[in-house]
Amino acid sequence: MDIATPAGMLIGLVLLIVAVILGAGASGIVAFINIPSIMIVVGGTVAATLVRYPLSRVTGLVSVVMKTIFFKSSTPQAEMKRLIEFAKLARREGLLALENKVGEIKDTFLSKSIQLLVDGTDADGLRTILEKEIDNIRYRHSIGKGVLESMGTVAPAFGMMGTLIGLVLMLRELDDPSKIGVGMATALITTFYGVLLSNLICLPMAGKLEIRSKEETLLKELIMEGVVAIQSGDNPGIVEEKLKGFLSPSQRKEKTLENLKDKIKSVK
Amino acid sequence: MDIATPAGMLIGLVLLIVAVILGAGASGIVAFINIPSIMIVVGGTVAATLVRYPLSRVTGLVSVVMKTIFFKSSTPQAEMKRLIEFAKLARREGLLALENKVGEIKDTFLSKSIQLLVDGTDADGLRTILEKEIDNIRYRHSIGKGVLESMGTVAPAFGMMGTLIGLVLMLRELDDPSKIGVGMATALITTFYGVLLSNLICLPMAGKLEIRSKEETLLKELIMEGVVAIQSGDNPGIVEEKLKGFLSPSQRKEKTLENLKDKIKSVK
Amino acid sequence: MDIATPAGMLIGLVLLIVAVILGAGASGIVAFINIPSIMIVVGGTVAATLVRYPLSRVTGLVSVVMKTIFFKSSTPQAEMKRLIEFAKLARREGLLALENKVGEIKDTFLSKSIQLLVDGTDADGLRTILEKEIDNIRYRHSIGKGVLESMGTVAPAFGMMGTLIGLVLMLRELDDPSKIGVGMATALITTFYGVLLSNLICLPMAGKLEIRSKEETLLKELIMEGVVAIQSGDNPGIVEEKLKGFLSPSQRKEKTLENLKDKIKSVK
Amino acid sequence: MDIATPAGMLIGLVLLIVAVILGAGASGIVAFINIPSIMIVVGGTVAATLVRYPLSRVTGLVSVVMKTIFFKSSTPQAEMKRLIEFAKLARREGLLALENKVGEIKDTFLSKSIQLLVDGTDADGLRTILEKEIDNIRYRHSIGKGVLESMGTVAPAFGMMGTLIGLVLMLRELDDPSKIGVGMATALITTFYGVLLSNLICLPMAGKLEIRSKEETLLKELIMEGVVAIQSGDNPGIVEEKLKGFLSPSQRKEKTLENLKDKIKSVK
Amino acid sequence: MDIATPAGMLIGLVLLIVAVILGAGASGIVAFINIPSIMIVVGGTVAATLVRYPLSRVTGLVSVVMKTIFFKSSTPQAEMKRLIEFAKLARREGLLALENKVGEIKDTFLSKSIQLLVDGTDADGLRTILEKEIDNIRYRHSIGKGVLESMGTVAPAFGMMGTLIGLVLMLRELDDPSKIGVGMATALITTFYGVLLSNLICLPMAGKLEIRSKEETLLKELIMEGVVAIQSGDNPGIVEEKLKGFLSPSQRKEKTLENLKDKIKSVK
Repeated sequence: MDIATPAGMLIGLVLLIVAVILGAGASGIVAFINIPSIMIVVGGTVAATLVRYPLSRVTGLVSVVMKTIFFKSSTPQAEMKRLIEFAKLARREGLLALENKVGEIKDTFLSKSIQLLVDGTDADGLRTILEKEIDNIRYRHSIGKGVLESMGTVAPAFGMMGTLIGLVLMLRELDDPSKIGVGMATALITTFYGVLLSNLICLPMAGKLEIRSKEETLLKELIMEGVVAIQSGDNPGIVEEKLKGFLSPSQRKEKTLENLKDKIKSVK
Repeated sequence: MDIATPAGMLIGLVLLIVAVILGAGASGIVAFINIPSIMIVVGGTVAATLVRYPLSRVTGLVSVVMKTIFFKSSTPQAEMKRLIEFAKLARREGLLALENKVGEIKDTFLSKSIQLLVDGTDADGLRTILEKEIDNIRYRHSIGKGVLESMGTVAPAFGMMGTLIGLVLMLRELDDPSKIGVGMATALITTFYGVLLSNLICLPMAGKLEIRSKEETLLKELIMEGVVAIQSGDNPGIVEEKLKGFLSPSQRKEKTLENLKDKIKSVK
Repeated sequence: MDIATPAGMLIGLVLLIVAVILGAGASGIVAFINIPSIMIVVGGTVAATLVRYPLSRVTGLVSVVMKTIFFKSSTPQAEMKRLIEFAKLARREGLLALENKVGEIKDTFLSKSIQLLVDGTDADGLRTILEKEIDNIRYRHSIGKGVLESMGTVAPAFGMMGTLIGLVLMLRELDDPSKIGVGMATALITTFYGVLLSNLICLPMAGKLEIRSKEETLLKELIMEGVVAIQSGDNPGIVEEKLKGFLSPSQRKEKTLENLKDKIKSVK
Repeated sequence: MDIATPAGMLIGLVLLIVAVILGAGASGIVAFINIPSIMIVVGGTVAATLVRYPLSRVTGLVSVVMKTIFFKSSTPQAEMKRLIEFAKLARREGLLALENKVGEIKDTFLSKSIQLLVDGTDADGLRTILEKEIDNIRYRHSIGKGVLESMGTVAPAFGMMGTLIGLVLMLRELDDPSKIGVGMATALITTFYGVLLSNLICLPMAGKLEIRSKEETLLKELIMEGVVAIQSGDNPGIVEEKLKGFLSPSQRKEKTLENLKDKIKSVK
Repeated sequence: MDIATPAGMLIGLVLLIVAVILGAGASGIVAFINIPSIMIVVGGTVAATLVRYPLSRVTGLVSVVMKTIFFKSSTPQAEMKRLIEFAKLARREGLLALENKVGEIKDTFLSKSIQLLVDGTDADGLRTILEKEIDNIRYRHSIGKGVLESMGTVAPAFGMMGTLIGLVLMLRELDDPSKIGVGMATALITTFYGVLLSNLICLPMAGKLEIRSKEETLLKELIMEGVVAIQSGDNPGIVEEKLKGFLSPSQRKEKTLENLKDKIKSVK
């Protein structure tokens, strides 16, 4: 799981709560809980998103966000190691020997790739089918990103609308000065919610979705290249060389370290 | 009909009305109905749009919006099924047998395509004419989108102008403090209208128009590919394979399910 | 003349005036006429435009705007009809027969094209010279658009400067509370002018200029293609086919209707 | 010298000063001179620019601005005339005859070009060296433009910071109401400075720099084409034809007029 | 070290402090130190950055900033001189003679390049490996730039949130007018912090990072070209010619001056 995302949200909220408590004691928190304000900002943002996007995309947002942000994807190093093992197996016992592995694999993209390999699909066919699959993944992510960005743009506008509603209602009852302060405070809370929702949640999550999308599609491309190399009958050393290009320098260092540990183990 | 668009607008408006009622009772609603404010925001936005766009585009906006947002377009699966049936018919009885079908088809793009096919247009001719047609559809949508986006940008500016007018008039009569509150409330309502018009209606509708435009042109491209495949005398199986590329993974699953049902039926 | 542009401006202004009168009676209008405010917004906007653009472009703006927005350009259908007539004439009596027509043509682009044709310029030469000419027209329009957009960006900033000047002067004389309201009202008027100038005049006019520029250059491209086709000795039917691509579907329908009327007439 | 730039700045400033005097008499001007405000806006803008750009670029800005905005560059017509004369001379007396001209030429780009020509550089070499030189000129201008744009973006932010400082200090001494007005006035002046610096000076000057950069590099390209044509031994008539493409239609008309005058003179 | 960056920040801060002291004496500074405000702006900005970027990128930011902004990189002239010396050595004593130099070189990119050269890598191999290395450097810089820009966008939003919190808390206790001023002052400080953090630190540093990234990658490209030229056995004169293209005109002048000095020395 990507700990930074929920941790960042939590830290941001805790900081704001602590700041409120430092300013007005624990009772100050109560001033920031206002049901109509939440209704306007969260509800209004969702409503505008419904006007803009088909229903299925809005309802699918939660699952896309969950899958791409909170579920731990594999690392390039792990996938590379696994593919090299498959290459060794294929070399030793033929492509069909990989069939037993399909059941063990949890990642549906890899298991589909191996199944296609075992079924005798040629290099071009593999590439066409798997690239199409990667495009679909990228497209699903881009929809989630678009919805989140659109929500991040609309949220402060609904915050402002809520504040305007509060101000208009307050200004009509100026006779009772004791209510002015509370009325205006309540009005401003809606703007606060809108800015918070946009800047701590929607826009940063859209940014993270983009980064995770790049990481995940890079991983899928590594798998595709590995599977195509296995299909071509490359020996495991060449497969490793081909896949190394997908690793960043720091990942390569880890890899070397890992190799060393493996060698030490194998010596023992 | 795309239920999400009118539903989203309704939800957004209801939420705002409920928030007003929670704040000031049902009588609070009256404070938000102000004819001059509506006149400035809606009228001013339309006026600026007239300065910017030729008259015909502004008057054509309503029909474009209605057609692309509220009318249900067919699904890729349905079109694919129909085209495969046409392919079977053409295989069995020749292209001319399709002529009887032209009358039954409601979609003008498909009926025109089939008519061209029956008239003996070759593959290149079909592609040229139909691509031109698709470009025209895309262009009509893009005009509608441009007008809506321009309205969404201008609406808050007219809202601000209305508020400035209200403030200026109020500030000239500061002698009577009892009028200040009401004057300022009225002034702020115009800004409220501008932000609402822009963020709940114009901008999200422009976004939806873009999404629907992509869906509809994809559908037309599917039809074009299918008709060209039929013209080339492809057998129905190959036509199906060619058109599958236009389906998203989830649509493909539905398709398989549907096929299954069809087979079960045909067995019975 | 493009009636929508001046009509839109008029409607916008009338709406704002009516809103003022509804709010404060006819005497309210006086509150919105403030010479120093106009001086700051209009003068400042022009001054910043002078800093940015060479003198000749700023002075040339008025004529560009007048020509492209207020003068009626021909329609594609009319130009197409005329070119087909020329094609018939050239076919019957040779290219030189067109020389008599040059004098009758008001549009300088078309008369220059025909003159080049009569002078025996070949297809490549025609295309090179006329494309250069079209580029020049497009460039002149783009300058006008740039100046208007720059004015639209700068106007609200000068509005804000005027308001700040008004506020600073007012705040120094807080002793006399009766002047506060009027002082602040006057200050806000400058912001009002800036937003109005930008959103009802400069930015929409820049948008219209772009649309008209596209229409006009499309018309010139239609003429160019027609003249090149005549030079190649194409028969009038082929010239018509070639030029049809420049018409939108709705224009083509009009064309067909017109043809019908022509045929009816020729029968009579 | 490009009179529009300093004239525009002067007009803008005078208009603002007149507006102040109209509002509060000559003594009102004093309210707008505030040393700490100037310090924050001008100093802060320069400081942020130093954080962003290397020292040499910031110090070099003044000279780039002076050279490109205030120094009169030659006109395309003048350069064209001179190049045609050179072409005639080269035709009559050989390329070496141009050597005497090098000393007379003030423009370093032209003198370098002629020197390369005399030294026997071939067409490709000329083009490579001179294009590199033009790229360098364009790059120097783009740096100046970038620095000015960055200043124009940052200035209003420092204006706002100054206003916030003023407000915070004023709000701490609310006991003495007589100081509130003056304190707030002083605070607002900083925002005024920031908006003024950005919208009347930095951003329009960045825009002008871009336009002058285009003009100057077009002029250098005309010279390059001319020198290459002379190197190729083209006759003066062809050199003229080749260079005409760099002139706008209005410049061509001037040129024709000038030619006429020359002819009249030569007849006399 | 790039003195302009820390100097600019220092100047900016000192100017703001001096402005505060001029306005309210040294005691005014105290009004601008507010722990909850710092907590909200700095903490909130970091929190939102954590939501958006993986943990490793945020923690790596400091080192990227330090390395690229504060550490002095070599100059193109120095690198060019060194490469020419290497070219002379390689010419005289063969490529293997460069091996002794590898230990002396501090720049890891250059030492890696020379090591590859000594190992007998061919021109294509050198280019592929070194270009990949340069891409990695560029990518590391772009991450740092992205994080800083994202922080610069989010900081003012958290400043606004802090101000809203302060206003809401203040408005609830309007009974005690003596607290209003201080409460509002405290609220505004958070906005001040947000604008300051964004405009004096985050955004200009992001800009500087981009400029330094361009400089550093240009230097690496110069080294790559030089090493490839040495590998090809080019004579030192040609190596110098090839590398000159990487120098700006002003750097070339320095170079010539330096050459002159060298010659004078060698004569002595």
